[in-house]
Amino acid sequence: MAVNLHIPAETDIHPVPGIEIGVTEAGVRKANRRDLTVFRLAPGSSVAGVFTQNRFRAAPVQLCERHLQAGQGIRALVINTGNANAGTGEQGLAAAQATCVALARELDVAPEQVLPFSTGVILEQLPVDRITAALPAAIAGLGTGNWFSAAHGIMTTDTLPKVHSVRVRIGGHEITITGISKGAGMIRPNMATMLGFLGTDAGIAQPLLDRLVRELADQSFNRITVDGDTSTNDSFIVIASGQSGLRIDSADDAHYAELRDALAQASRELAQKIVRDAEGATKFITVHVEEAATTDEALQVAYSVAHSPLVKTAFYASDPNLGRILCAIGYAGIDDLDTAKLRLWLDDVLVARDGGRNPDYREEDGQRVMQQPEITVRIALGRGDVSDTVYTCDFSHEYVSINADYRS
Amino acid sequence: MAVNLHIPAETDIHPVPGIEIGVTEAGVRKANRRDLTVFRLAPGSSVAGVFTQNRFRAAPVQLCERHLQAGQGIRALVINTGNANAGTGEQGLAAAQATCVALARELDVAPEQVLPFSTGVILEQLPVDRITAALPAAIAGLGTGNWFSAAHGIMTTDTLPKVHSVRVRIGGHEITITGISKGAGMIRPNMATMLGFLGTDAGIAQPLLDRLVRELADQSFNRITVDGDTSTNDSFIVIASGQSGLRIDSADDAHYAELRDALAQASRELAQKIVRDAEGATKFITVHVEEAATTDEALQVAYSVAHSPLVKTAFYASDPNLGRILCAIGYAGIDDLDTAKLRLWLDDVLVARDGGRNPDYREEDGQRVMQQPEITVRIALGRGDVSDTVYTCDFSHEYVSINADYRS
Repeated sequence: MAVNLHIPAETDIHPVPGIEIGVTEAGVRKANRRDLTVFRLAPGSSVAGVFTQNRFRAAPVQLCERHLQAGQGIRALVINTGNANAGTGEQGLAAAQATCVALARELDVAPEQVLPFSTGVILEQLPVDRITAALPAAIAGLGTGNWFSAAHGIMTTDTLPKVHSVRVRIGGHEITITGISKGAGMIRPNMATMLGFLGTDAGIAQPLLDRLVRELADQSFNRITVDGDTSTNDSFIVIASGQSGLRIDSADDAHYAELRDALAQASRELAQKIVRDAEGATKFITVHVEEAATTDEALQVAYSVAHSPLVKTAFYASDPNLGRILCAIGYAGIDDLDTAKLRLWLDDVLVARDGGRNPDYREEDGQRVMQQPEITVRIALGRGDVSDTVYTCDFSHEYVSINADYRS
Repeated sequence: MAVNLHIPAETDIHPVPGIEIGVTEAGVRKANRRDLTVFRLAPGSSVAGVFTQNRFRAAPVQLCERHLQAGQGIRALVINTGNANAGTGEQGLAAAQATCVALARELDVAPEQVLPFSTGVILEQLPVDRITAALPAAIAGLGTGNWFSAAHGIMTTDTLPKVHSVRVRIGGHEITITGISKGAGMIRPNMATMLGFLGTDAGIAQPLLDRLVRELADQSFNRITVDGDTSTNDSFIVIASGQSGLRIDSADDAHYAELRDALAQASRELAQKIVRDAEGATKFITVHVEEAATTDEALQVAYSVAHSPLVKTAFYASDPNLGRILCAIGYAGIDDLDTAKLRLWLDDVLVARDGGRNPDYREEDGQRVMQQPEITVRIALGRGDVSDTVYTCDFSHEYVSINADYRS
């Protein structure tokens, strides 16, 4: 039951010159399921990524970081669903390495030029033989037109594929930006319980892309939460193939801001799609905190509201139980918060001020907003001029059903 | 569907000399409901309390702190359900004050000798007239045998009354310890989303009791969580009437440790009863963290596990989905956690070590433990010798139902 999740028509999903994709069935966990995706990147592509901060970072995440640091130029990605290869110790690391070695041999590149990604069940060993056996089929299918198929191929508990594609003119060049993401539960990226792959045929110098990918993540995947559970496998990758002719080497370039904004917009779309398709979600909630003294405290308050099971069940019930929001603001950990200065809105309805209910607030106004599929909670702290935004969803019976049944 | 919540027979609930209780119907929110409880304390009683750290602390909590600081000796408590008098601004404070003034007049004490408590819906003004009108009826019913009735009188979404009572011999005196608690949701005391009242006829000097009450809370109510929502009204009160003849003035007293341990045990019982009756709970979970470097990090890890919706739904499903527990440990915020040193047990079953699954672990052993109504998760961090314990419950469909319907 995704919330306003837009799926573009296949004709609106633009191939990115320099990026080929192949998808096949490896039978990682279940048969008859397209669970293996391979990306082949043109020589000279810049690739950068950000990864989960969970201490149990999965084997493929550890390997991604190593291979990016090796600096030999990334030429391929391999992504499996069904098994996260996390909490698998040395054996798991060896399995991820074996996957890279096998794909490198097939594509005639070095193993350090391959980035591996896994998503699925934690604590079980990766069936590496089944994956390597399926690589030739994935490679045989490589083509630039397979983004939609890849969006399907990386799904786990997702109900819908997540893909976003735009074309923009920058500096006289037509630039394509196309990306996919997956994730529906264990989502509180930091960086991020999910997989996100964003490709462009703009050229971006490696040091600049290394910086940009963090900026993009902080405006998108690092601002969403479903259940507060930061996964072991979160990865967000930006690929700049450079095939368009536009090449940007420095942040001072006249066209950098345009390209950055276009990529940021695409990143936000992909991140929000994860929330729209969150496990059991029936509402898409934007929590916007303003007048904070620092970004940290704005996010502290936003996440406190976005994670409260009581707030989330009230959204599910379309119940303007505003006390629960105030309560979550109150325990967010800002010790010197002056509750008399705080104001709270549901969309455009001012519901609380001066430490209590707004005297002009009418329950039917709150009720009207709560019934919408998309709701903005706006909180003004009266402490400074910093603002930030977090995206989340409600908490439904369906979430419990999905997570009580996931493994069985 | 409470989990192993023991309700003592009425004959096993011992009156505490010096503490009288009356319960009546005030119609605060609903008719035909005993929603008003009054305690009258003998002159010379020592009373101390700890209260919620939520910044939106309710009007009665603010008044409790003021009246305890006034140091005139507390002689009465008044507790209503149906309305939390939180997020109610100056008007709410005036309402709580009016309640104290009215009860003080009836009992011929000073308003500063009355402690008020409220629990229920947030953001609505307290119907103070209905409460003051009902005070005479509560007072007319005052008696020492009404603890069970009071345990009923303070219930909100609780399904069962929570009462604990023991008699112990200390220093040649027979000492009675009897207490009640309430709370089922919005529970992550700090101090605490709940109400707890513990009475004893031991005498305890005020400065000693002030210190002791914090110690007791930190071993009981400050170690439980249902949903991570720290409420606006949490209050835990210890009353020492001194009627038994035993009088303890200092921690050096030969009998202090005995009395402290008996009170601590009673506090833990009352706190655990809240978890046993938590909204929708089907399992009682003990999360024990050992080999931590500090108490803070032990609690960080314990709460990360205890709050994870994915861990809690796995308990609900009796699914030994251990990866979810490792994941929650991994994102608890210990940046230099060495996952290779960590060990994880379900009861006596060692499930993970050396950064992954214990090779000797068999799924059926995990399954056996997960099916029990009471489960201990034991986590050894390999970092030091500090340990701590948090109590929580699973996360069920019923929790969502209760909280999606509560107000309506």
